[in-house]
Amino acid sequence: MSAALTNAPHSNAVGRLPGRHFLQTPGPTNLPDTVLRAMDRNAINHRGPEFGRLGRAVIAGMREVFGTQSGMIALYPASGTGAWEAALVNTLSPGDHVLMSHTGWFAHLWEQMAERLGLVAVMLETDWRRGADPAAIADALSADKEGRIKAVCVVHNETSTSCLSDVAAVRHAIDKVGHGALLMVDAISSLGCGPFEFDGWGVDVAISGSQKGLMVPPGLSFNAVSPKAMAAGKTARLARGYWDWAPLAVANETGFFPYTPAVNLLYALEAAIGLMRAEGFPAIYARHARFAEATRRAAAAWGLELQCLDARAYSPGVTAVRVPEGHSADKLRGLILEHFDMSLGNGLGRIEDRVFRIGHMGDINALQLMGALAGVEMGLALAGIPHRAGGVQAAAAYLAETA
Amino acid sequence: MSAALTNAPHSNAVGRLPGRHFLQTPGPTNLPDTVLRAMDRNAINHRGPEFGRLGRAVIAGMREVFGTQSGMIALYPASGTGAWEAALVNTLSPGDHVLMSHTGWFAHLWEQMAERLGLVAVMLETDWRRGADPAAIADALSADKEGRIKAVCVVHNETSTSCLSDVAAVRHAIDKVGHGALLMVDAISSLGCGPFEFDGWGVDVAISGSQKGLMVPPGLSFNAVSPKAMAAGKTARLARGYWDWAPLAVANETGFFPYTPAVNLLYALEAAIGLMRAEGFPAIYARHARFAEATRRAAAAWGLELQCLDARAYSPGVTAVRVPEGHSADKLRGLILEHFDMSLGNGLGRIEDRVFRIGHMGDINALQLMGALAGVEMGLALAGIPHRAGGVQAAAAYLAETA
Amino acid sequence: MSAALTNAPHSNAVGRLPGRHFLQTPGPTNLPDTVLRAMDRNAINHRGPEFGRLGRAVIAGMREVFGTQSGMIALYPASGTGAWEAALVNTLSPGDHVLMSHTGWFAHLWEQMAERLGLVAVMLETDWRRGADPAAIADALSADKEGRIKAVCVVHNETSTSCLSDVAAVRHAIDKVGHGALLMVDAISSLGCGPFEFDGWGVDVAISGSQKGLMVPPGLSFNAVSPKAMAAGKTARLARGYWDWAPLAVANETGFFPYTPAVNLLYALEAAIGLMRAEGFPAIYARHARFAEATRRAAAAWGLELQCLDARAYSPGVTAVRVPEGHSADKLRGLILEHFDMSLGNGLGRIEDRVFRIGHMGDINALQLMGALAGVEMGLALAGIPHRAGGVQAAAAYLAETA
Amino acid sequence: MSAALTNAPHSNAVGRLPGRHFLQTPGPTNLPDTVLRAMDRNAINHRGPEFGRLGRAVIAGMREVFGTQSGMIALYPASGTGAWEAALVNTLSPGDHVLMSHTGWFAHLWEQMAERLGLVAVMLETDWRRGADPAAIADALSADKEGRIKAVCVVHNETSTSCLSDVAAVRHAIDKVGHGALLMVDAISSLGCGPFEFDGWGVDVAISGSQKGLMVPPGLSFNAVSPKAMAAGKTARLARGYWDWAPLAVANETGFFPYTPAVNLLYALEAAIGLMRAEGFPAIYARHARFAEATRRAAAAWGLELQCLDARAYSPGVTAVRVPEGHSADKLRGLILEHFDMSLGNGLGRIEDRVFRIGHMGDINALQLMGALAGVEMGLALAGIPHRAGGVQAAAAYLAETA
Repeated sequence: MSAALTNAPHSNAVGRLPGRHFLQTPGPTNLPDTVLRAMDRNAINHRGPEFGRLGRAVIAGMREVFGTQSGMIALYPASGTGAWEAALVNTLSPGDHVLMSHTGWFAHLWEQMAERLGLVAVMLETDWRRGADPAAIADALSADKEGRIKAVCVVHNETSTSCLSDVAAVRHAIDKVGHGALLMVDAISSLGCGPFEFDGWGVDVAISGSQKGLMVPPGLSFNAVSPKAMAAGKTARLARGYWDWAPLAVANETGFFPYTPAVNLLYALEAAIGLMRAEGFPAIYARHARFAEATRRAAAAWGLELQCLDARAYSPGVTAVRVPEGHSADKLRGLILEHFDMSLGNGLGRIEDRVFRIGHMGDINALQLMGALAGVEMGLALAGIPHRAGGVQAAAAYLAETA
Repeated sequence: MSAALTNAPHSNAVGRLPGRHFLQTPGPTNLPDTVLRAMDRNAINHRGPEFGRLGRAVIAGMREVFGTQSGMIALYPASGTGAWEAALVNTLSPGDHVLMSHTGWFAHLWEQMAERLGLVAVMLETDWRRGADPAAIADALSADKEGRIKAVCVVHNETSTSCLSDVAAVRHAIDKVGHGALLMVDAISSLGCGPFEFDGWGVDVAISGSQKGLMVPPGLSFNAVSPKAMAAGKTARLARGYWDWAPLAVANETGFFPYTPAVNLLYALEAAIGLMRAEGFPAIYARHARFAEATRRAAAAWGLELQCLDARAYSPGVTAVRVPEGHSADKLRGLILEHFDMSLGNGLGRIEDRVFRIGHMGDINALQLMGALAGVEMGLALAGIPHRAGGVQAAAAYLAETA
Repeated sequence: MSAALTNAPHSNAVGRLPGRHFLQTPGPTNLPDTVLRAMDRNAINHRGPEFGRLGRAVIAGMREVFGTQSGMIALYPASGTGAWEAALVNTLSPGDHVLMSHTGWFAHLWEQMAERLGLVAVMLETDWRRGADPAAIADALSADKEGRIKAVCVVHNETSTSCLSDVAAVRHAIDKVGHGALLMVDAISSLGCGPFEFDGWGVDVAISGSQKGLMVPPGLSFNAVSPKAMAAGKTARLARGYWDWAPLAVANETGFFPYTPAVNLLYALEAAIGLMRAEGFPAIYARHARFAEATRRAAAAWGLELQCLDARAYSPGVTAVRVPEGHSADKLRGLILEHFDMSLGNGLGRIEDRVFRIGHMGDINALQLMGALAGVEMGLALAGIPHRAGGVQAAAAYLAETA
Repeated sequence: MSAALTNAPHSNAVGRLPGRHFLQTPGPTNLPDTVLRAMDRNAINHRGPEFGRLGRAVIAGMREVFGTQSGMIALYPASGTGAWEAALVNTLSPGDHVLMSHTGWFAHLWEQMAERLGLVAVMLETDWRRGADPAAIADALSADKEGRIKAVCVVHNETSTSCLSDVAAVRHAIDKVGHGALLMVDAISSLGCGPFEFDGWGVDVAISGSQKGLMVPPGLSFNAVSPKAMAAGKTARLARGYWDWAPLAVANETGFFPYTPAVNLLYALEAAIGLMRAEGFPAIYARHARFAEATRRAAAAWGLELQCLDARAYSPGVTAVRVPEGHSADKLRGLILEHFDMSLGNGLGRIEDRVFRIGHMGDINALQLMGALAGVEMGLALAGIPHRAGGVQAAAAYLAETA
């Protein structure tokens, strides 16, 4: 029975739904068949030679994806939330201050995590419609005469608002004021969607997860760790067991993990890395940028406002679109799910029901995007949300021009 | 190495293509994951009890799909071409006449098959832009005073032209003139897309294949056989070995086949029958009709002509669209494949390069169709084929209206 | 529902059976996961460029497997029975004589096929406990002064008796008497299990199927065709449509087939060829020979008689073992299926219920064989069949010695 | 490239290995095809209605597996190590004492985890050849006049030694002395192999993982939590973020998780629960007990000593066998891997290289076990380890008797 239900096609209350569900949330994203098939294989002995090869391969691959040569890769069987925790507990001590930019819902959750662990989160407020402000970060660091701030934490792509923060600029701000804080970057929904340069940007700890741009099922998360952050771990006093980097640094050499690794998810990760290499990272980033622009052109044609107000901060992987006052984004999403079998992302926190989010990250091509945008436009009509027709046409025109 | 290539995502000359290929040919059609996963299982002993259950289940299912209670189901590991041959060699003798309507390329191929087997194919010509003409059939039968015509052969859905023939009307024509010929119907690309009533329409032999509306990989084909056709087999003198119905009639009872059956394809077929039952046949047919209409509205908006000139004969599963004189449908298809990763059907025989065919049969939903139509519209622009924009918008408007 | 059943684990009347079923029939054989996963992929346009690559790859691979450089490979969506028919209808005319050696059940079925198609099968009898007799073949050909015999047909590995015929010796016998008959060899259950040299042995038509040594699901069959056999096709008068070699010879160049090919089974075939190349044909043949010897040592230890009386004719892929008079092989197989979840091959025709057949062909390793032999030994005990214990131990000793 | 390697069959230095690898480690265990196929499906929106159904289903299923009606199920994307940590941080405060029985390597690791988190682990020593001693536990609790001990931690099945502890007896010991400590039980490698009664035995926190008796890939772990343990969480002061039970208690009602759940592993878990229900828990436990006894009979016949000295403590899922002094268990395992493609468990900690461990847990049947035991016996011969032949025969005799 369970097996049947699990394998059943998606269905609604009435019966079986034909065709492929359009999964246009900003994660989990569509899983390539190559990735799914790679995972569909018996487990192996995680202490045998075949596993060692796999372990080393995925660590090398993740170095490439993060853009680091010297960084240590901590690979966890855990969600991204766990990797946030790992970043903090491996480097900080109770009462340390962390400087965070309140760019959206995920920044808020990370703040909560820090507080729960006994840290003091110093928040730089935003209107949730732009990225982190490097100048504000510089100011806050300048003001930190006692050096209480031990880490600057930035969410690279705020999945909730579809605003990108400029990590290189944040690094520059830290350096400009000569502050010694570590730079921690949540790259959960940016990695694999647009450029990320761990070494080039001077990141100390990057956090990511498998289920977004990496096209891998949820269940794996990552830290990339600079030598400076590793060194900080020596004196950090937050308790750590599962998340401890020390045995994982050994795993970077041997390919063997201190606990039973999520073997099948590692098969998936290896396959996904192979796909990314085959497409090529510049091609992947260009594709995301093109689809994001097509999506924004559709929104503009509909006459709907983007959540992100700063054109330099547009996300490559997700676009949050606002519905007019007096209308419900969640009702729209419900109608689209019911009638067109598409899942869109919902508004979170203070923008609940105010935005819907179109995910266009990971394994997606132009015609899938066109189907998704058509679904939104048909949904707007069904929901009676004031808009102009023509968004689909505008996106098509742009995609044809840039083909 | 081979395994790697087989499992590799689709790719072009440049590199790996992301996202899902749009397979919009009129067969093979998209295979539901449920069907693929069902097939992805070790073989079983085809002489053991577990196989008997499977064999009986798929035969019962195919009876339901064909709409027959008394018909014998012959199930072949073979392409549809083989099932054409089976229909002829089990019922006819050398020199027998078969009356065929030359409705398109597949009618032409069936004619060739009949001639190769030693039959005389009597052809009723058409312009390849409509279905078979029941009146012409009645006339030809009336003229057959010596009773040389032993079978009337009709291609239900001419995949090459997207014109449907009216099988019930053909039956009526035969009965009206009181001719004893068998009625043989090629339902290869109609079954599972629109109504088919083997018993209700008085069909004697229906031919079908797995890879169209049934959503099963190619490699299985079928005959449904009326008692009258079974009886004809007793005196038919065309040689038959592999195709012989007699042992398959036994298989209808026992579930065991006279040769090693294509076990994994039968797993797939059983799963596909389950999906069809879950969606419901009326819902399946309504979905196909709606998508066909949306496609025709797009074509009308583009200002392109349909190959099918008879509105009563529009195919539910495929729409052949003509390109203007002086333009190449194949070049268009090539550009669409290259830039938008979509496969469309090509023109065959006398309409080679004059039409492209949009398959909208099998496991497809509204947003997949919208993606496909967007791909066509963008391709028309890239190919410089004169057309009006707005086809996608017209289809979306219709689909939203009828949601 | 159907999907659930299809995907359900094997089960008996009582409930779900744990672990892997032991499929020890001589076909279908166990399918490697790599082969199953390769098949578990959406279909592609069989007229597009990606298919052409696949088609050419599997034809090249099958040339390698058959051991031929110049042979044409006819690849059918059909069971092996179809490929028997193809061999006959492409080369012969009504009333032609074919010389067959009645080595077992499959020779008998091939005879029936020939007779149904209008040929005259001249049978050389055997006791079903050895291979074809080259001397008897030479004698029969010598006596054929009128040249009525157009083909000598030999079943290379008689799956029903586990006796191998010496194809090279048969070729030698034909050449010695200077007869012009074609040499046709059924290699269905020998290909991929032991050496086969189409060119080296001078075979004119070889017949094979996917589901034995090739480790591919049932549903594909093959002819390899010498230039002499192709030439015979020019004057052969048996009717042929589906089986016609002429368009398939074109497919050998282009990779495109005259009908919709069984795309997913071709994915499987490509993957299986890749596995065979990776293991290496000499290693594959040595493995089969070793497992066959281990199986015979177990039988000898049990004190049970082999069906095959000629040590030179022992099959590499299957071993038929006789049960003592007064005991039922089928009852034994039933008990083993019920209690140990293993399928063995049954006795066919005149040795029905007298033998059980242990398949050890295809994707199998030493420990799987040991499990299978243990299942037989435990089954003999349960069935009360007189035997000595120690067969498993004898096989283990041999396998350890030869490790 | 990576995809190819991931999907490649297991291989050794020489080339491709045929047949199925024998994965006889005590976890990860063999994954049923039904489980693998269930996982091989696109992700879904973890905030949509379809996910809610899945979430509630697996929580209900895990309640059944743990044997609890009132227990809260915490389900983590994490290895079992994480679930150990979760058990501690949700209930305890810095400096709390935990009473542990040093039954083997995993008890040792849990101790280390407790120390790292700021707890004081009070260890009851053993010789690693038996389960925890309830009398010693009672004594230690009696001596704890100040009530420093807040938890009694027991590893139910010590995977490293194959000794089971009697959980009900430990509960009885705690109750007898009237101590208020929580009872925490590591059921990672016992759950699904033999009886586990969370409610019946009065467990407060049970810890388990997916990759052992549950037949699910590694990457999920669990806590079952009694109301008393939940209440302890209210005052516990160890920092907790990711592991916090509070939001998971909400998930028990809604089916939605506070972070992105490992969707595909949950598909697998649902399928595995379905398989367990279909076989039936009593049947599953009886099967494990029978295979464990067969394995011990083989060891006895070989003349090799079991690591476990207490017949009441024999593990249902794994059997650790000692090699004679002067011989290397790891060398034996290496030879068996190389020559017979089987993975066995290695000795850990103080019994490194002294034992090899035969896993017989999860999805395994009698013939797979026989193959595994044959592999061990052949390996003993190859390794030159003094032993008597006949272990395989002894196991077969027992299995046939009890069929």
